[in-house]
Amino acid sequence: MAENSILLAAVSVLSVCQQGYFAVQVGKARLKYKVTPPAVYGSPEFERVFRAQQNCVEFYPIFLLTLWMAGWYFNQVFASCLGLVYIYARYQYFWGYSEAAKKRITGFRLSLGILALLTVLGTLGIADSFLDEYLDLNIAQKLRHF
Amino acid sequence: MAENSILLAAVSVLSVCQQGYFAVQVGKARLKYKVTPPAVYGSPEFERVFRAQQNCVEFYPIFLLTLWMAGWYFNQVFASCLGLVYIYARYQYFWGYSEAAKKRITGFRLSLGILALLTVLGTLGIADSFLDEYLDLNIAQKLRHF
Amino acid sequence: MAENSILLAAVSVLSVCQQGYFAVQVGKARLKYKVTPPAVYGSPEFERVFRAQQNCVEFYPIFLLTLWMAGWYFNQVFASCLGLVYIYARYQYFWGYSEAAKKRITGFRLSLGILALLTVLGTLGIADSFLDEYLDLNIAQKLRHF
Repeated sequence: MAENSILLAAVSVLSVCQQGYFAVQVGKARLKYKVTPPAVYGSPEFERVFRAQQNCVEFYPIFLLTLWMAGWYFNQVFASCLGLVYIYARYQYFWGYSEAAKKRITGFRLSLGILALLTVLGTLGIADSFLDEYLDLNIAQKLRHF
Repeated sequence: MAENSILLAAVSVLSVCQQGYFAVQVGKARLKYKVTPPAVYGSPEFERVFRAQQNCVEFYPIFLLTLWMAGWYFNQVFASCLGLVYIYARYQYFWGYSEAAKKRITGFRLSLGILALLTVLGTLGIADSFLDEYLDLNIAQKLRHF
Repeated sequence: MAENSILLAAVSVLSVCQQGYFAVQVGKARLKYKVTPPAVYGSPEFERVFRAQQNCVEFYPIFLLTLWMAGWYFNQVFASCLGLVYIYARYQYFWGYSEAAKKRITGFRLSLGILALLTVLGTLGIADSFLDEYLDLNIAQKLRHF
């Protein structure tokens, strides 16, 4: 398995670095807009940066799970490429939201689209493995046969 | 491994869909109670929906980890069934909390019970594998012997 | 894979118990400082406990991912030991923050250092596996050769 997951692992580590980068931006915004911990409210500029990072944090386990499921059960290379697009979409979302609440929408929609696609691919792959394992029906093989 | 994890993968993808569903409900509540981003406060009805989703998000990595640990090291089928009960408990919790803060308790207790059970099963399975691997003691085999 | 991940699994389950412990502390702080759900603001003492737990929740998927990547692709024993130090650092952070906002810093810096180290180790391991798999370059073997 570890050998068949290198690309997934590489994309995951890249996304971890992005999460760290967003957390650093929140720390910088705290200093810039003078919001001392534990407060997270008081400045609309800080609140936007904070909510942008919080949203990325919320979706992070969902991203990791769908990335690995699609990569393990569907296709590693394709899932990893989608993972890279997701990282780009989150970058766009974060900086858009930091500037204005309206500018968050483009990146957000793209990131949701990628998650939906990864979920669909993962579901297809799992369904195929499931039929193969429990009902001895290998659909992928039959499709190749045609 | 991928072949021995199909049920876990299926339950995980189902739970991801549930997380997406909860996130959509928060978006709907934003429109309904007119809470514009980045604000997350102002309407008690919205705050309940938001806190319910936040709590599900908080517990999500814990759920995924205990599900997979119990499935890998104890028993996949049993862990997957508990995973389905957890998804049901979270559904009950979310809609209960959305209606009234008091109504969140039944679903929450059930979900905590499932998590505790998954943790115990995972710990037992890991302890057994550990003894087997490092001390060459196969307890499960001995128990079967009796 | 399951056999080569026992230590990682054990550390992960221990960290799940810690997450549960932190969540219980927030519940206790709710009762102590009389902050009824869904409110999360009103008492600075409660807010500190809550923010401390929220920060641990935020970093939890990052910790799990870097732990497993470093364990799978670099060295399981070393990664697991770093995982134990991380759990200790989070304990120190949580109780420090609960007492005073300033006291959170020591534990926080230690936990960030561990995460950075796990990320670097994971990246090195993945890069080595990548070169080995795709370019047939086994650096680790060559280094051993010298």
